[in-house]
Amino acid sequence: MLKFIDRLAKLVQTKGNGVCVGLDPRFESLPKEMQTGRDHGHGQRAAAYAEFCKAIIDVVCPLVPVVKPQSAFFEALGPDGMSALAGVISHATSKTGAEELLVILDGKRNDIGSTAQAYAEAYLGRNSPWGADALTVSPYLGDDSLEPFAAACDANGAGIFVLVKTSNPGGGDFQDQLIQQSAGTLYQRVADVVEARAKSTSGECEYGDIGAVVGATYPEQLAELRQAMPHTWFLVPGYGAQGGGAADVAAAFDKRGLGAVVNSSRGIIFAHNKEPYKTSYGESRWQDAVRAATEDMIRDLRSALPHA
Amino acid sequence: MLKFIDRLAKLVQTKGNGVCVGLDPRFESLPKEMQTGRDHGHGQRAAAYAEFCKAIIDVVCPLVPVVKPQSAFFEALGPDGMSALAGVISHATSKTGAEELLVILDGKRNDIGSTAQAYAEAYLGRNSPWGADALTVSPYLGDDSLEPFAAACDANGAGIFVLVKTSNPGGGDFQDQLIQQSAGTLYQRVADVVEARAKSTSGECEYGDIGAVVGATYPEQLAELRQAMPHTWFLVPGYGAQGGGAADVAAAFDKRGLGAVVNSSRGIIFAHNKEPYKTSYGESRWQDAVRAATEDMIRDLRSALPHA
Repeated sequence: MLKFIDRLAKLVQTKGNGVCVGLDPRFESLPKEMQTGRDHGHGQRAAAYAEFCKAIIDVVCPLVPVVKPQSAFFEALGPDGMSALAGVISHATSKTGAEELLVILDGKRNDIGSTAQAYAEAYLGRNSPWGADALTVSPYLGDDSLEPFAAACDANGAGIFVLVKTSNPGGGDFQDQLIQQSAGTLYQRVADVVEARAKSTSGECEYGDIGAVVGATYPEQLAELRQAMPHTWFLVPGYGAQGGGAADVAAAFDKRGLGAVVNSSRGIIFAHNKEPYKTSYGESRWQDAVRAATEDMIRDLRSALPHA
Repeated sequence: MLKFIDRLAKLVQTKGNGVCVGLDPRFESLPKEMQTGRDHGHGQRAAAYAEFCKAIIDVVCPLVPVVKPQSAFFEALGPDGMSALAGVISHATSKTGAEELLVILDGKRNDIGSTAQAYAEAYLGRNSPWGADALTVSPYLGDDSLEPFAAACDANGAGIFVLVKTSNPGGGDFQDQLIQQSAGTLYQRVADVVEARAKSTSGECEYGDIGAVVGATYPEQLAELRQAMPHTWFLVPGYGAQGGGAADVAAAFDKRGLGAVVNSSRGIIFAHNKEPYKTSYGESRWQDAVRAATEDMIRDLRSALPHA
């Protein structure tokens, strides 16, 4: 079975960019045509989320290698939302050829032992119940909690991205704590554990199936982690709405233009609410706004990556 | 609205014990009558999980104050599993009077900002889409990630239990790291943050709506954390199958018998597979095995709590 990370590397090369489109639906931000008559209960809202996200996928699939549904927004609609999530993942993974997409489900799951195994069975691989290619995972429970995920990645051609340095203002509360008798911080200690697992699962592209979440909002730490984690592919949140720019994330990529995917959610999927797209396209042409915002982000990242 | 933590304290006093029954269904361990003819697809297994967990709830509701469904096992069955989970939570929260139960959903969720808010909206409070009373939460993202949960607890009469010291062998990889320029470890630093939030949300029972997960398998740290976190209610996993005994968890309780609920999952729900219950009751009387195992655990905990 082709390894997840080699499929990812190939798609980044084929599409010529490392953009990840985050699918974070919020009812109030949807185009009005999708809200109308649907504000009655979770079933209607879930139907709107599914229709909206599938339409986004149809727009971006020729352009980018990865989409990242945010599980929380679907969970917030109860079981109806979860059914919508499954449909969205399935729609994305049904794309083939020049439209092929990988799906990273953003669920930040983890637990111990057989419970972690249940999460791995739930989400990892296209034959799993949810059918995602990769899952975001929280590290607080330690290295043994990552083992069932690593085993499922190997068995199912899937990947995980472990939180290392998150993009939020309070991310440093624990992550930036200096650890005694090591030269660094907690996030560096987590990075060491993740890099060891990445190295042991590396494929032809030289990166491993065990990746890391490293936020765009702390560019110095991003550059430092790129050096410290040569086998670890980065999922980089925080570009756009959260304030990270192309120059901030450039250090996440290697000279081949590999090694990272940079996520943007609101900046792309709700482009119709935001200038210059609001004026250029308006709500009625919201898919064109999504396409233009995606193309602008691709261009922005390329301008900061002269080697790629 | 009555605070979550005061409802919990009252139920622990009324039922006379701090036992939490973990609902961790695994298809292969279910009574054979529930497996038969149902091994075809997620829908059938999900129906078996719902029937099994509801039957467990019917047995334990007069005996214990809390049940804790483990989300991972339901998620492993895809959307069908999530519908079953919603039904199980609803069945538990429908109990009233002497059978009243609180539901802690074990999902170990968290994310940043508005995404954490989506998780809080999804799960916290009986009027939320999933209708749980409390949720387990991971701390790696920092104190600001707890804020949306704390706000939802306050608004909806709900609670959270933040992972502090987990029960697994590798839990110490990061949690036990000594932090420079503080007198202690990472888990102690997390404990300080949680205790501050517990103190600021404390109710009549003197504990707060923001609780902590502290494993039974490290009894010295459990006793130390009890001292360090006087306003924090503990959810204690690791009793029974994982090796923790009544003496190990006694330190989690105060002199009133409050301050903790001790979880047992497999030891109770699959008692029919295990001696002495297997011989005494057998599969055909599996509910009697569940009742006996629950009563034995209540007795075991009481024997170690002379003050309660």
